[in-house]
Amino acid sequence: MRETYHEELESIGDGLVEMANLVGSAIGLATTALLDADLQLAESVISADAKVDDLQRDLENRAITVLARQQPVATDLRVVVTSLRMSADLERCGDLARHVAKLARMRYPERAVPRDLRRTVLEMGQLAQRLMAQAAEVVITHDVDAALQLEKDDDRMDELHRTIFQHLLDEKWQHGVETAVDVTLVGRYYERFADHAVSVAQRVVYLVTGEHADELTTDTPA
Amino acid sequence: MRETYHEELESIGDGLVEMANLVGSAIGLATTALLDADLQLAESVISADAKVDDLQRDLENRAITVLARQQPVATDLRVVVTSLRMSADLERCGDLARHVAKLARMRYPERAVPRDLRRTVLEMGQLAQRLMAQAAEVVITHDVDAALQLEKDDDRMDELHRTIFQHLLDEKWQHGVETAVDVTLVGRYYERFADHAVSVAQRVVYLVTGEHADELTTDTPA
Repeated sequence: MRETYHEELESIGDGLVEMANLVGSAIGLATTALLDADLQLAESVISADAKVDDLQRDLENRAITVLARQQPVATDLRVVVTSLRMSADLERCGDLARHVAKLARMRYPERAVPRDLRRTVLEMGQLAQRLMAQAAEVVITHDVDAALQLEKDDDRMDELHRTIFQHLLDEKWQHGVETAVDVTLVGRYYERFADHAVSVAQRVVYLVTGEHADELTTDTPA
Repeated sequence: MRETYHEELESIGDGLVEMANLVGSAIGLATTALLDADLQLAESVISADAKVDDLQRDLENRAITVLARQQPVATDLRVVVTSLRMSADLERCGDLARHVAKLARMRYPERAVPRDLRRTVLEMGQLAQRLMAQAAEVVITHDVDAALQLEKDDDRMDELHRTIFQHLLDEKWQHGVETAVDVTLVGRYYERFADHAVSVAQRVVYLVTGEHADELTTDTPA
């Protein structure tokens, strides 16, 4: 019985890692679709998000089954409950990658991002993908230091987000209001994606240390 | 023992309703602060959000205690797990109300919303507050019809959101890029707030019917 139990717990962890891998790839592909105005790629990101939603539902059902059958207490109980919240973070990341892809599709064959912001948006996309890979690693290793490092790396996302605003509010902005709206939303999507990656890592810290990592920070993404 | 158990379950439900009431009021006050450029009101909304975060943490701890002590199964187990997700939705709504208030504070003594969008934003704020009041009612009554009605009422939010975009993309837009950025974000905050209110109601439907209400819809806010 014990073995099955730990297998069940492990399969929940595996599900989280699989979700993190999928949404990490999705944000990378969505960024490429956005920057290259690649309609086919955008469509594939949009339709692939259903898989993330399925995984999340599956994970939720498995968690409920473990709670009902095994009635875990103490740490195991916190693992299961926290996994549910992490899966919600990851599902939301899938939505955000889909939003980026939808914007690419909406503006096709035009490009939503003007040339002078291309590099910034590329870096945001790559950073988002990297933060998610780090979060997946934290889920696997339960490495608290890596989780805290991830929070620091997220500072770079905030910097990039500020760069976008600086461009938008520069008097020399010449791309019109529609592009300003697009770029505002894109910036927010990446920032939220990164917040959720940080949140996943913070929840691991909570599991390991019993302390809410967000007690050390000011904002709680959910 | 049974009595304590049901008292514990009830206190979780009460916590959800209290959170819903708080964030409903918060979005109403934040809207007023935004439209009137009322700095003091904005500050009070911003600082009041800590109370919502406290309630959420408290609710999460109570849920974990119930799971550990009472080891509920079947419906009761789903109630507890779903409550955790609802509390995450509500906490996020608190953040969104705070974002609106922060924008009011950032632009003070100017107003972030131009005169010709005032009525639309007012309606968005009132609708958000009303949707949350409906969601709280659904949590209390478990009324599936009311939950489905709430989804319909959310269509109006989408309409208002489209109205904002129409203004933004109108050639006659004369408020500059900074205001366009502000209005884009404000529109998104209200839309997300409403999505989370709908999500809370959908989770009640899931509890009552055993079916995910979001199987009937396309987007899953989280």
